[in-house]
Amino acid sequence: MDLRKLLEEVKNENIDIDFALEKLKDLPYEDLGYANIDHHRELRNGYPEVIYCEGKSDEHILGIIDKMNQKSSNILGTRCRKETFLKIKEIYNHAEYEEASKILKIQNHDIENIGKGKIVIATGGTSDIPVADEAYHTAKFLGNDVDRIYDVGVAGIHRLLNKRHKIDSARVIVAVAGMEGALASVIGGLVDVPVIAVPTSVGYGANFGGLAALLAMLNSCASGISVVNIDNGFGAGYLASMINKL
Amino acid sequence: MDLRKLLEEVKNENIDIDFALEKLKDLPYEDLGYANIDHHRELRNGYPEVIYCEGKSDEHILGIIDKMNQKSSNILGTRCRKETFLKIKEIYNHAEYEEASKILKIQNHDIENIGKGKIVIATGGTSDIPVADEAYHTAKFLGNDVDRIYDVGVAGIHRLLNKRHKIDSARVIVAVAGMEGALASVIGGLVDVPVIAVPTSVGYGANFGGLAALLAMLNSCASGISVVNIDNGFGAGYLASMINKL
Amino acid sequence: MDLRKLLEEVKNENIDIDFALEKLKDLPYEDLGYANIDHHRELRNGYPEVIYCEGKSDEHILGIIDKMNQKSSNILGTRCRKETFLKIKEIYNHAEYEEASKILKIQNHDIENIGKGKIVIATGGTSDIPVADEAYHTAKFLGNDVDRIYDVGVAGIHRLLNKRHKIDSARVIVAVAGMEGALASVIGGLVDVPVIAVPTSVGYGANFGGLAALLAMLNSCASGISVVNIDNGFGAGYLASMINKL
Amino acid sequence: MDLRKLLEEVKNENIDIDFALEKLKDLPYEDLGYANIDHHRELRNGYPEVIYCEGKSDEHILGIIDKMNQKSSNILGTRCRKETFLKIKEIYNHAEYEEASKILKIQNHDIENIGKGKIVIATGGTSDIPVADEAYHTAKFLGNDVDRIYDVGVAGIHRLLNKRHKIDSARVIVAVAGMEGALASVIGGLVDVPVIAVPTSVGYGANFGGLAALLAMLNSCASGISVVNIDNGFGAGYLASMINKL
Amino acid sequence: MDLRKLLEEVKNENIDIDFALEKLKDLPYEDLGYANIDHHRELRNGYPEVIYCEGKSDEHILGIIDKMNQKSSNILGTRCRKETFLKIKEIYNHAEYEEASKILKIQNHDIENIGKGKIVIATGGTSDIPVADEAYHTAKFLGNDVDRIYDVGVAGIHRLLNKRHKIDSARVIVAVAGMEGALASVIGGLVDVPVIAVPTSVGYGANFGGLAALLAMLNSCASGISVVNIDNGFGAGYLASMINKL
Amino acid sequence: MDLRKLLEEVKNENIDIDFALEKLKDLPYEDLGYANIDHHRELRNGYPEVIYCEGKSDEHILGIIDKMNQKSSNILGTRCRKETFLKIKEIYNHAEYEEASKILKIQNHDIENIGKGKIVIATGGTSDIPVADEAYHTAKFLGNDVDRIYDVGVAGIHRLLNKRHKIDSARVIVAVAGMEGALASVIGGLVDVPVIAVPTSVGYGANFGGLAALLAMLNSCASGISVVNIDNGFGAGYLASMINKL
Amino acid sequence: MDLRKLLEEVKNENIDIDFALEKLKDLPYEDLGYANIDHHRELRNGYPEVIYCEGKSDEHILGIIDKMNQKSSNILGTRCRKETFLKIKEIYNHAEYEEASKILKIQNHDIENIGKGKIVIATGGTSDIPVADEAYHTAKFLGNDVDRIYDVGVAGIHRLLNKRHKIDSARVIVAVAGMEGALASVIGGLVDVPVIAVPTSVGYGANFGGLAALLAMLNSCASGISVVNIDNGFGAGYLASMINKL
Amino acid sequence: MDLRKLLEEVKNENIDIDFALEKLKDLPYEDLGYANIDHHRELRNGYPEVIYCEGKSDEHILGIIDKMNQKSSNILGTRCRKETFLKIKEIYNHAEYEEASKILKIQNHDIENIGKGKIVIATGGTSDIPVADEAYHTAKFLGNDVDRIYDVGVAGIHRLLNKRHKIDSARVIVAVAGMEGALASVIGGLVDVPVIAVPTSVGYGANFGGLAALLAMLNSCASGISVVNIDNGFGAGYLASMINKL
Repeated sequence: MDLRKLLEEVKNENIDIDFALEKLKDLPYEDLGYANIDHHRELRNGYPEVIYCEGKSDEHILGIIDKMNQKSSNILGTRCRKETFLKIKEIYNHAEYEEASKILKIQNHDIENIGKGKIVIATGGTSDIPVADEAYHTAKFLGNDVDRIYDVGVAGIHRLLNKRHKIDSARVIVAVAGMEGALASVIGGLVDVPVIAVPTSVGYGANFGGLAALLAMLNSCASGISVVNIDNGFGAGYLASMINKL
Repeated sequence: MDLRKLLEEVKNENIDIDFALEKLKDLPYEDLGYANIDHHRELRNGYPEVIYCEGKSDEHILGIIDKMNQKSSNILGTRCRKETFLKIKEIYNHAEYEEASKILKIQNHDIENIGKGKIVIATGGTSDIPVADEAYHTAKFLGNDVDRIYDVGVAGIHRLLNKRHKIDSARVIVAVAGMEGALASVIGGLVDVPVIAVPTSVGYGANFGGLAALLAMLNSCASGISVVNIDNGFGAGYLASMINKL
Repeated sequence: MDLRKLLEEVKNENIDIDFALEKLKDLPYEDLGYANIDHHRELRNGYPEVIYCEGKSDEHILGIIDKMNQKSSNILGTRCRKETFLKIKEIYNHAEYEEASKILKIQNHDIENIGKGKIVIATGGTSDIPVADEAYHTAKFLGNDVDRIYDVGVAGIHRLLNKRHKIDSARVIVAVAGMEGALASVIGGLVDVPVIAVPTSVGYGANFGGLAALLAMLNSCASGISVVNIDNGFGAGYLASMINKL
Repeated sequence: MDLRKLLEEVKNENIDIDFALEKLKDLPYEDLGYANIDHHRELRNGYPEVIYCEGKSDEHILGIIDKMNQKSSNILGTRCRKETFLKIKEIYNHAEYEEASKILKIQNHDIENIGKGKIVIATGGTSDIPVADEAYHTAKFLGNDVDRIYDVGVAGIHRLLNKRHKIDSARVIVAVAGMEGALASVIGGLVDVPVIAVPTSVGYGANFGGLAALLAMLNSCASGISVVNIDNGFGAGYLASMINKL
Repeated sequence: MDLRKLLEEVKNENIDIDFALEKLKDLPYEDLGYANIDHHRELRNGYPEVIYCEGKSDEHILGIIDKMNQKSSNILGTRCRKETFLKIKEIYNHAEYEEASKILKIQNHDIENIGKGKIVIATGGTSDIPVADEAYHTAKFLGNDVDRIYDVGVAGIHRLLNKRHKIDSARVIVAVAGMEGALASVIGGLVDVPVIAVPTSVGYGANFGGLAALLAMLNSCASGISVVNIDNGFGAGYLASMINKL
Repeated sequence: MDLRKLLEEVKNENIDIDFALEKLKDLPYEDLGYANIDHHRELRNGYPEVIYCEGKSDEHILGIIDKMNQKSSNILGTRCRKETFLKIKEIYNHAEYEEASKILKIQNHDIENIGKGKIVIATGGTSDIPVADEAYHTAKFLGNDVDRIYDVGVAGIHRLLNKRHKIDSARVIVAVAGMEGALASVIGGLVDVPVIAVPTSVGYGANFGGLAALLAMLNSCASGISVVNIDNGFGAGYLASMINKL
Repeated sequence: MDLRKLLEEVKNENIDIDFALEKLKDLPYEDLGYANIDHHRELRNGYPEVIYCEGKSDEHILGIIDKMNQKSSNILGTRCRKETFLKIKEIYNHAEYEEASKILKIQNHDIENIGKGKIVIATGGTSDIPVADEAYHTAKFLGNDVDRIYDVGVAGIHRLLNKRHKIDSARVIVAVAGMEGALASVIGGLVDVPVIAVPTSVGYGANFGGLAALLAMLNSCASGISVVNIDNGFGAGYLASMINKL
Repeated sequence: MDLRKLLEEVKNENIDIDFALEKLKDLPYEDLGYANIDHHRELRNGYPEVIYCEGKSDEHILGIIDKMNQKSSNILGTRCRKETFLKIKEIYNHAEYEEASKILKIQNHDIENIGKGKIVIATGGTSDIPVADEAYHTAKFLGNDVDRIYDVGVAGIHRLLNKRHKIDSARVIVAVAGMEGALASVIGGLVDVPVIAVPTSVGYGANFGGLAALLAMLNSCASGISVVNIDNGFGAGYLASMINKL
C-alpha cells in the first residue's frame, strides 16, 4: 500500500482527488455483500486464500471461490462439509479433499517452498489425527516440508523419546493432544525451538470438550510454548508456516 | 379484570378518568390458559406483537396468532421452525418467512416509519449473517431505515475502515460478531452513537457457544457499548428501534 | 478528520507531502510513552476526558491529568483510589471526589446540559448504591438531568410500582441490581424506553461475583434491555448520556 | 434381611416390639440385582412409588413395574420415553401418559387427597409448560388440589398481579421459569407461604442450559424461596405435596 | 400513594372496603432515599424486620434501625460486622449479637411461638456451625422450637443414625453441609418431611467456594429436598419457619 | 529393559554399536504410523492390551488388533461401537461384546487370577450400570474376583447398610454414582480399604454432565477415596485390579 | 445409644454375641455438641485420629484434642494455624509442628510400621513442596517408609528419568503437581503400581486455583491413576498408606 | 548428550560400565533436594537460567541462585518479591530489580545479541504495562532488540494505526491486552509475522481474572496468532526470543 506514491500522483495531478479518495477508501477488498475478499493477501505474502467454511452456506462458499478463482489464486478451505466439496468438485474438477481433516484444496498454480526448515507435527494419540492432519495439509499447502510423528503421548514416554531424532530435526513443532495435553510440555522441555500447542476435544467427561488440554497447555511449565484454539489445526499449521518462513 | 365494569364506574363517576387511564395502561391481557396476550402493546407503542416461537408447540403458536390476528395486529415471530411456518402459511397466506434468520412476518397493515435516523448493522464474518438478519428484519418490521455492512471483522481492519462513511451515517449501530467479538470495540471507538453488541455462537472450541464473544463485548474498553444475549438478533433490532424512535 | 481538505491542500501545494504524511500518521493522540491521550474527543462530542484509574500508578494518572489540564478539558476519573485523589487535590485544588462511587471530577469549564430528557437510575437495594452513584455522577458530569430511585428491588414489587410516575418520566433508564438482577426485566416490562442493565457484585455464594445478575439480565424476557459489565456504573452512565443526546 | 426371623424373635420375646418396629421402619427393599425397590414407602407415607425412567432400559423399567404392581401400588414414572410407555401400555392397559411432561401413571387404587390446602403452579412463559406440568401431574397424583397460572412472567408484571387472588389462595407455590428466572422473586415478595422455585432450561445463549435461571433463583432477594434442580418439575411437585401435607 | 385519600374515598363510599383492603395489603413503604422500609411486614405475618447488613454503610444501617425502632418492631440483622454492632449497642443497649453467626437482634417485644412443630438443624461438620447458627438464631427469633445436631456428616454415617430419634421428631429439617454436601441426601432418604439444604463454602480446592456442595444438593437423588444459596443460613431458617407455621 | 546386559554385549563386541543404538532407540513399540503399540506390556505386568476405541476409525482399530493378535495377546477394547465389533467379529470369531458397557474382549489365552482379594463395585442407581459394568468387565478380564452391588444410593441408606457384609468383604471398592455422587463418601466412612470413586454423567440440569458428582467426590469428607474421570469405568476397574494385585 | 444396656443384654443372653459385635463395630462416638469424636478408629485400623483444623475455632480444636488425649491416641492435625499450634503446645508440650505443611502431631505412643512397601512422593516443582510434605508427614505418621523426589516436572523429563530407580522401588506413588499437572501421566506410564495424583494450586492465570492440573490429571491417558482434591496432600498420604497396608 | 561417543568409550574400555551407567543416569541436573538445576541449559542454547520465584521460599531461591552463580550463569528471576530481592542484593550486589514487572536480573557475563530482527511489544492500555515489561525485560536479557508501543488499544484504532511503521518493522510481535483482548486480532490482521498474544488480568467483573481476554485471543479470527497464559509476560518474551533467534 504505497501511500507516498499515491500522494505524489495527486500532487502531480496524474490522478484527481476523487479518484484518490476512492482508492483510499477502496483498499483491495472485493465486497460481495455477504463477504469482503482480500485479493492482495497472496500478493503480499505468497499465501493462498483461506476460506473457513463452517457456518457458511454453499452459495456463499461457491461465490467466494468464484471470485478467488478469477485471480487464479490457490485456495484452501477448512472445515469443509463433504457435500459442499462435491458441489465444488462439479465446477472445479481439480479441487481436492482430505476427508479426515475436511480440508479443501484448489491449486491453480505451483506451491513455492517458502519454509526454511522442517515442521514436525506430533500427536498424543491416534484419535488426534484429524486435527493434526488439518495442520499438516495447511502447512504443506503453504509451502513447507512437514513431518508427522503420531501416537507418541506421554503415558508411554519412550514412544516419544524414540522419535528424538525427528523432534530434534524440527525448526518448529506442532504438538497436538487431547485428554491431559501434556505432550506439549514434554516436547517443550526437549527442544529449543518454538512449540505450537493444539489442544483437541478428544476425550470425555471432565475433558469438557478440550478445556482440560487447553488449560494444561496454557499452564505448561516448559518455556517456548504457545497455544491455539481447541481443534484449531489450521491455525497451528498457518503459524508454524509463518515462523518457518522467517 | 373487567374492562366493562371499569368503564361503567367511570361513567357513573365512581372513579375518575385519571384513575381509569392509569388502570388501562397495563391492560388487558387475554388469557388463553397457556399464554397471556398483551393486545394493547401495538396501541401503546406502535410496535407489532412478537412471538418467541422456540419451545412452543405449533398448537400454541397458532392459537396465539389466531387471537392476535383478530385484532388485525402486525405479527412478528422469531426462531420459527420452517414446518411451523408452513402450517401458518396454510391459514394466513400473506405470512412471510425469512429462512436464514427464521423470522415469521404477518403484516396486517402498513408499517409506519417511526425511526428518526438510520440503523446500521455490521457483522464480523459471513457466518454471523443469520443473527444479523434477525436484527435487520426486526428493525425493518418495526419501522426503521436499516443498512447492512457484512464481513468487516477486525482481522482485516481496513474492510471496516473502508465502510467508515456508512458507519458515520448511523444513529444507532448493531455490531454482530462471534469468535473474539472485537468488532464492537473497534466500532465503538470510531463513533459517538450507541453501539448494541450481539455476540454470536459462531466459532468452535474455546468459543464455548458464544461465551468468548460475550465476555469480550462486556469487557469492551470502548464507551457507549452495551450487550444483548448470544445470538439475540431480535433483541438488538428491537432495542435499536426503541433508541432510534427517541 | 477532513481528508478531502488535506488532499486539496496537498494538491494546491499549501502543505508538502511529508507534512501531510505526518498529519495522516499523527492523528491527534498525544503519546506519553505509557499513554496515548485523545485530545479531540471533547471537541468531537462535547464530552469530558475519562481516566480509568484502576491499575494505573499515581505517576501515570498525574501525568495524564497534567496533559489534559493543559487543554482546559473537564476531566472525569473512575475507580480512583482516595490516596490518589488526595495527591491530585494538592495540585488541582478544584478537584472533587465522590467517596462511595470513587469518582474524581476536575471541572475546568461549565458543563453544558446536552441531554434531551431525563435519565432515571434505579437500584434493587441499598448495597447497589456505589455502582449506581458511579452512573449518576458520570451522567451528571456529561450534562444530563438525572433522577435516582434506590432500593426498589422486585422482592417488594410495590416499592417499584409506587415510583411508577418517576419511571414513566424517563427517556432512558439505568437499572442497577445485584443478587438475582430481576429489576431490569420488571422495569423493561413497564416502559417503552431503553433500559441499560448494570449487574452488580452485591450478594454472596452462588452469586459468583455478579455472574448471577449478569446472566439474568442477558436472559431477560423483556425487550429493550441491554447489559454492561458487572459493576460498570460508568459505562451505563456514559451510554445513557449518549442515548439521551440523540 | 429375614423378616420372618425378626417376627419369630418378637414372638419368642427375644427382642421387644419397639426394637422390631424400629427395624421394620427402614425395611424391606426388594433386590432385583439391577434395582432395590422400597415397597414400604406407600405404607409409610401414603405416596405412590416413583420411577425415574431416564437412563434405564425398558427391561429394567418393566421389571420394576412388575414387582410394584404385584403389591397393587400406585406407580408414577417420570421422564418416560413414549416408546417405553407404549410397551408398558401393552401389559398394563390402565397405564396413562402425559405427553408434554412425559409422566407415566399406573393407578391401582384411589388417590386419597392428603393435601391440606391448595398448591399453585405458575410459569414465566408458555415454553415452561412441560416442566410445570411435570410438577402438576406429580402433585395431583400425590393427592393435592392444584391450580395453574401459566405465562405470567415478570416482563409484563400486571399479568401476574392480575392473578393475585389465585396466588393468595395458595398454601404452597411452585414458580417455574427459564430465562432470567425472576418470577420466583416477585411471587416470593407478594406472599407469605413457601415458594419452590424451578429453573427451566428454556432460553438460549448465555442461559447455559438453565444456569442463568438457577443462579437467579438461588440469589433471590426475597425470603421464603428455595430451589430444586433445573427442569425438575417432579421434585417441586413432590416437595410441594410434602409441605402441603404438614 | 396517598393513604389518606384512599381512606377518604372509602368513607365517601367512592370505593368499597374490599378494594381498599386490597390496596392496603401492599402498603406502606417508608422511603429513606437509600432504603424503602416495609413497616407492615410484622403486622402482616408476625415476623420481625430483617436487615441484610453486608454492603450497607453503618449510617444506612443505623438509619434503618432508627425508623424500625420507632414502630417498636423486633429487628433481626444478618451478616452484621462486629464494629457495626458496637455502634448500634451504644444507642440501643438491649441489642444482642451472636458472634459466630454475625446475627444482630433487637427485641422490642416478646417473641410469640408461631411454629407448630420442631425444626431440626443438622451440620456435616464442626466448621459448618457459623452458617447453621445463622439458621438457628433466625428460626428462634421467628418464634420456633429449634434443635441442633452438629457434626453428623455422612463419612461416619452412624453418627447420624445415632441421632435418628431427633431427626424423626422434626417437622422441618435444615441440613447444612460443605465439602460434598451429601448430608441432605441421606437425611432426605430417612424422613418424610421437607429438608432445606444449605451448602456451605467450607472446604478448599475443587470445592470452588461451596459450588461442589451446591451442585450435589441440587442433584440429590432423594425427594423432598430444596436448596438455598451457599452459606445462606438465614434463608433456610426463615423458610423453615414459614413452613413450620403452616 | 536390561541396559547392563546390552552394554556388556557391546563391550564383548557380541553386538556392534549401531545395533545397540538401534536397540536403545527401538524400544519395543511397534509403529504403525497412526499408532505405537506396546507389545511388552503383557510381558511386563501380565495385563492384556487395551484399546480405547472412541475417536479411532475402524481401519485403525482393526490394524491395531491385527498386530496384537499376532502376539496372541489378550485384547480389551473400551467404548467400542457395536458396528465396529461386528466387523471385528467377522475376522476374529472368538471376539465377545458387552453391549451395555461397550466392552470388546478377544481372549487368546486363559486369564490368570492375579487379584489377592475381592473387588466390590457398587452403584448409586440403576442408570449407573453401564459405567459400573465397564469397571466390572475390565477387572474380570484383568484376573480378579469381582462382586456387584447395584442401586444402593444414599437416599435410601438402608439399601446400602443391608449389603454391609458384602462391602466388608472387599479388598478394594469401586463406587459408581451420578447425581450428587454421595455414595463414595458413605462407603468410605464404612470401610478401611481404598475406595475408587467414579462419577457418572447420569442426571440432568445442574448435573452438568457429571460435574456435580465429580466435585462431590473430590470434596469427600471421608478419607481413603480417590477419583477417576466422569464415566471412566475402565480406569476404575484397571486401578482396582492394580491395587488388588499388590 | 446405651453401651451398658447392650452389654447387659449380652450378659442376660437376650442378644447374642455376634449381634453385639456388629452393633459395636460402628460405635461409639463421643458427642461434644460441636463435634462427634470416633474413639474406636485407632482400635479398628491402627490409625491415629485426624483433625481437619481449617474453619474450626481454637476452642473447638482444643476441646477435641482434650478428649482424644484422654484415650492416649496419637493425634494428627492438618491445616493447623501456627497460632493454634502455639496454644496447643502450651498444654501438650510434646506437640510438634511442620511449618511448611502446617501439620500438627501429638504422639502419645510409638508409631507401628504398618506399610508393606515404600511410598514415593514426587513433585513437579519446588513450589509444590508444602502440599507434598503434607502427604509425606501424614504417611510417615501412619507408619510408612516414605521417599521424596522433588522438582522432577515434565518440562525436563530427564530429571524424572534420572530418578527411575527410586520410582521403580515404590509400592505406591503420590504425584504432586500444579501448572499443567502432567507429572502423574508420565509417572503412570513408567510404573505398574497405583499412582495417586494431587493437583496443586501452584501457578497463576488460567490455572484457576489448580483447576488446570486437576482436569489434566482426571483426563490422564495413563492407566492406574486416580485423583484427590486440589492441594489435598493429607488425602493422598492417607490413601497411599491404606493401599500400602494391603 | 553424545550417546555414540559414550558407547565408543565403553567399547574401547576407556570408561567402565558402571561409570557409563552412572553417566547415563546422571544427566547434568544438580539435585538440591528441593530443586533440580539444569546447568547445561545455557551451554545448550545460550539462554540464562530462569527462576520462577512465586511460591518458593527465600531460602530455596537463594540456594538455587548460589548454585547457578557458581557456574557464572546469567540469572533471570520472575515474579520476585521485593523483600526477596533485597536479601539477594545483600549477597549479590550486582543484582538488579525491575519493580513494576518484578523481574530480578543477575548478570554475570555480557549478553550476546542473538535475535535476528526486532521484537515489538504492544499493550492495549497503560494498566497492562507490568505484564508487558516482564516480556520486555525477558527478551532484552535473552539478547534481543525490543521496541515498546504502549496504550494502543482498539477502542481508538488510530492510536494503533499511527504506529504502523513500528509494527511493520517487527520480526515478532507480542500483543499484551486485558479487557476484551482485541489488540492481538487487529495487529494479526495488519502484519505477516507471528503474533504472541498475552491476555492480562486487567479489568473487572465479567473479565473473570483475564478469562475474557484469554478466550478472545484464542478465538481470534486473524491467522498467525498464538496465546500464552494470562499475565505470562515472561513466557511471551521467551518465545518471542526463541522465534527471533531462528
